[in-house]
Amino acid sequence: MIGTEIEHLIKLLSRLPGYGPRSARRAALHLLKNRESLMRPLAQALGIAADVIVECPQCHNLDTCAPCSICANDGRDVSQLCIVEDISDLWAIEKTGVFKGYYHVLGGTLSALDGIGPEDLSVPHLLQRAQEPQVKEVIVALNATIDGQTTAHYLSDCLQSANVATTQLAHGVPIGGQIDYMDDGTLTTALKSRKAV
Amino acid sequence: MIGTEIEHLIKLLSRLPGYGPRSARRAALHLLKNRESLMRPLAQALGIAADVIVECPQCHNLDTCAPCSICANDGRDVSQLCIVEDISDLWAIEKTGVFKGYYHVLGGTLSALDGIGPEDLSVPHLLQRAQEPQVKEVIVALNATIDGQTTAHYLSDCLQSANVATTQLAHGVPIGGQIDYMDDGTLTTALKSRKAV
Repeated sequence: MIGTEIEHLIKLLSRLPGYGPRSARRAALHLLKNRESLMRPLAQALGIAADVIVECPQCHNLDTCAPCSICANDGRDVSQLCIVEDISDLWAIEKTGVFKGYYHVLGGTLSALDGIGPEDLSVPHLLQRAQEPQVKEVIVALNATIDGQTTAHYLSDCLQSANVATTQLAHGVPIGGQIDYMDDGTLTTALKSRKAV
Repeated sequence: MIGTEIEHLIKLLSRLPGYGPRSARRAALHLLKNRESLMRPLAQALGIAADVIVECPQCHNLDTCAPCSICANDGRDVSQLCIVEDISDLWAIEKTGVFKGYYHVLGGTLSALDGIGPEDLSVPHLLQRAQEPQVKEVIVALNATIDGQTTAHYLSDCLQSANVATTQLAHGVPIGGQIDYMDDGTLTTALKSRKAV
């Protein structure tokens, strides 16, 4: 009933994050109804991005140049190195405009269940970068999940041999958060890490 | 910080239904990580579909051929014409395999607020098709929403001049539905339209 080309398109769209067969059908129709304004530009943008985007050999960020525009920027603070799990975390931190050092993208977290060890991530490369004399502080900015915190502990153990200060993001009540909606873990951490006003 | 090509891609992805800036970023990363298996095939599928998919001049369905494969199928029941709001509704009904007649896609519902009148939809074309001598029944399969039902009433008024039986989908408790979760409107309709067991 549906043409093969539409079915093929729906199948591919359903593999996008957050999409299933039903939402992919909706997206396919939306695209076909906005052919010139969205569908063709998207096809082109996908093709171009697939061609020009490369992984940065230094920090494992994605950019059109290698090293990426952050690593190639001499004006940043060489003494700080921020470890993130994924490129989306790098983007999120970069958007704040607060951090002016360099990044290192791990590409995931350690997971005994999924058989992901330090060699599967860019951990050896990270330890090598942390040994560089100009690096004074390594900021572990991993998710406050079990996997993230396990990885953070493993990394801070590894980094003890390097001559750097290892820090991690503060944990507590998020800005705008309401105390009666917070889980026990967050409130316990926030209480324990309380600060003088 | 993010390359222009990625930003452009994210901007286009954020215009897909159900996507916002954040989910579009996640989708862009997912695509870049699955470049050969998903990103390039999707770019190609979008381009091909944009080229070959056309609107059926008879029922306003989308297909690679005009008239579409449903309208071109001589084996279907010419006496039945099913009116749907959108192509996705046509796909949903066609998937049941129960309906063997032909379709007519309105392309929306009447809406005084949005200024959508009968001429903006394919209503004149529908009335013309309903006048054809072989058509005996017009099934109005519009959404059970206010806009859908307003349009259904308008259409059944218009169709009174044509020599056809006008029917609409049954309304009631959906299969698998739990009575204590149903809204008042559904239960009222289900009670009023009760059937002998």
